[in-house]
Amino acid sequence: MSQEQIIVQKFGGSSIADPIRIREVASRICRSRLAGANLVIVVSAMGNTTDDLIRLAGETAGADGAPNLREVDTLLSTGELVSATLMAIAIQSMGQDVVSLSGTQAGIRTESTHGSARISAVDPARLRRELDAGRILIVAGFQGVTEMGDVTTLGRGGSDTTAVAVAAALGAERCEIYTDVDGIYTSDPRLVPEARKLAEIGYEEMLEMAMLGAKMNPRSIELGAVYSVPMLVASSFADAPGTLIHGGEPTLEVRRAITGIPVDRNVAKITVRGVKDRPGVAAALFEPLADAGISVDVIVQNASADGLTDMTFTVARADVQRALAVARDRSEVESSEVTGDPDMAKVSVVGTGMQNSPGYAARMFRALASAGVNIEMITTSEIRITCIVRRDQAQAAAQALHAAFKLDKAAD
Amino acid sequence: MSQEQIIVQKFGGSSIADPIRIREVASRICRSRLAGANLVIVVSAMGNTTDDLIRLAGETAGADGAPNLREVDTLLSTGELVSATLMAIAIQSMGQDVVSLSGTQAGIRTESTHGSARISAVDPARLRRELDAGRILIVAGFQGVTEMGDVTTLGRGGSDTTAVAVAAALGAERCEIYTDVDGIYTSDPRLVPEARKLAEIGYEEMLEMAMLGAKMNPRSIELGAVYSVPMLVASSFADAPGTLIHGGEPTLEVRRAITGIPVDRNVAKITVRGVKDRPGVAAALFEPLADAGISVDVIVQNASADGLTDMTFTVARADVQRALAVARDRSEVESSEVTGDPDMAKVSVVGTGMQNSPGYAARMFRALASAGVNIEMITTSEIRITCIVRRDQAQAAAQALHAAFKLDKAAD
Repeated sequence: MSQEQIIVQKFGGSSIADPIRIREVASRICRSRLAGANLVIVVSAMGNTTDDLIRLAGETAGADGAPNLREVDTLLSTGELVSATLMAIAIQSMGQDVVSLSGTQAGIRTESTHGSARISAVDPARLRRELDAGRILIVAGFQGVTEMGDVTTLGRGGSDTTAVAVAAALGAERCEIYTDVDGIYTSDPRLVPEARKLAEIGYEEMLEMAMLGAKMNPRSIELGAVYSVPMLVASSFADAPGTLIHGGEPTLEVRRAITGIPVDRNVAKITVRGVKDRPGVAAALFEPLADAGISVDVIVQNASADGLTDMTFTVARADVQRALAVARDRSEVESSEVTGDPDMAKVSVVGTGMQNSPGYAARMFRALASAGVNIEMITTSEIRITCIVRRDQAQAAAQALHAAFKLDKAAD
Repeated sequence: MSQEQIIVQKFGGSSIADPIRIREVASRICRSRLAGANLVIVVSAMGNTTDDLIRLAGETAGADGAPNLREVDTLLSTGELVSATLMAIAIQSMGQDVVSLSGTQAGIRTESTHGSARISAVDPARLRRELDAGRILIVAGFQGVTEMGDVTTLGRGGSDTTAVAVAAALGAERCEIYTDVDGIYTSDPRLVPEARKLAEIGYEEMLEMAMLGAKMNPRSIELGAVYSVPMLVASSFADAPGTLIHGGEPTLEVRRAITGIPVDRNVAKITVRGVKDRPGVAAALFEPLADAGISVDVIVQNASADGLTDMTFTVARADVQRALAVARDRSEVESSEVTGDPDMAKVSVVGTGMQNSPGYAARMFRALASAGVNIEMITTSEIRITCIVRRDQAQAAAQALHAAFKLDKAAD
């Protein structure tokens, strides 16, 4: 590996939950360094630190108030500062030259939307200077800084985003995401014992998988795709090879038809019946949900009959009560009934191979029917077909689809 | 109070040890705000946070290494970021406009001596902008930033220093230090029940008191004196009036002869006997102690006899074994014997009134003799006489001096 090549490695909170694990990861990093790589390490907060800090903020805000997001951002950012400095201390004790950098020091500039800021630019000046000095860099993930000098956080999975953004800004050879899973599987191994670890996967497939239940942050994959940063997802505890997420390299020319069967069992369904079918009614329903910070996923509207229509949409299970309250509160929607069901699941088939080939939907529906699984809603994209099924049928559905599309056998 | 007047208030770690205490202090701050003051609040880390972080750093550094000071500084600085943001969250929940600022954001520029950086300048631009916007400012104490953008800490008592420096930079009317004592006493009330709280005290007297055992950071008092910042020391739990530290205002024209009797029972004595009395021998002894980070306080050298001399000096009790080892290791000092005694105490009389009046030393020695206290070492400054006595005689010494100089009766 030449002196110019840079590798970014990201370690999640469970990998560095206490001083002992931090030292284990530190010696792993030192081994990579001795193998010749220029390393930029991005760390999350240790273990449950972020949740603990959020609870502390809630207690301090008292019964009345929601804590101010700007203040919460600085508060939460301390979690990654602690883990970054401790990692630097551990690596230094093993004899390597190392320096920790906050988001501000690492040049992670963001917009000023506190709590879920988007990275606007990475100024790599200091990163380069420290790398040129021969140091291992430890960057506090999940955080950035506004033009004003205020600290922001990047929202859920933000440390992955930091890692990919830094890799893009430095032109790194690869961004390695070390986590408590050892790669991307064809389906959830807890539900489908035959699920198989993928050696590689394309960005767009991974993006669909991530949004449909695979444990990855979609934003970081999007960023990786835009800047063509090859991303390796691997275990921080074992040395097993992980899954490489990358663009259309030659080995992927012959694409698998179906790459994976992501399953999300954390889905609730809201049905609004007897809605007057006139312009603006969808906006009147969904704008207040967005204002309440409730993410709506699948939306289905049935064909209108007698000027009345039914709308069904899904939200995360935890949001079902709030979503029901908001939907029932919309007097201008004039619906006859609003009901909710928290026990749904989302089962999808994902693969770029289905793009120009007909028949995948039919095969999916046939496989589900044979397994006795009832489909409640259907939605599709170019490389994905998603069915909403009852939660207690999710496992049967995933197993049936995994077998029907022969995912237990490697295609490549 | 006019719109222009600014008051800086500093709250120590025990005053804000948990969310409940933070909310108590927050409502106190809101009351001050409603009374019309423009407020800059400086906070320490909550309770034992700093000690917990130091332990965590030690565990992570492992058996081999002392943790890197630059990394420890950023690590420790998170303690004050947490308390500053929580305080802002509490105040905001009570309806006041408020913003927290890190040392970096507050413009606290320091030299780059990690672990005990000195403030080189305070850039008040952002502080002024936020004050002009009508906000209460919460500044994370104990920390600053180097020209490079690296976080530093200011060493022991650093939050007091932050508070006084900010008060000086903003031309604040007063810097109020809220702590777990309710003011400065004529002597340690645990040893001398007649000890009386002082309503006011001059900077130089306070500086001597602070260096001799009173619970205050000498650096902050020095800074207050240089920039003429009136400092109020008061209880963060009670509303009782505290002690005002200030310069030579009219009410102090008639100075007390003696202001206080500070006592420090944390003293050890090292004696080096039979030292060859030639140039450079003192340097050969004390330079290695300084290099080892051991603070030497009182130094006494007896008159030389036969080209040999005895040197005695005091160090903090915790340092006695290390100091002994360093002193015994000095082959070039060629001493016949090095002994240590960890059970000493330092009892002083302090007062600007003694400056041009003879006889105070004689009165002090007479009072100690009458109380049966043996004096082991003596050292003086213009406004102070200090005696080193045995630790078990410190209380008798302090009580005798407190009575002899009539400190139980207010002079003003």
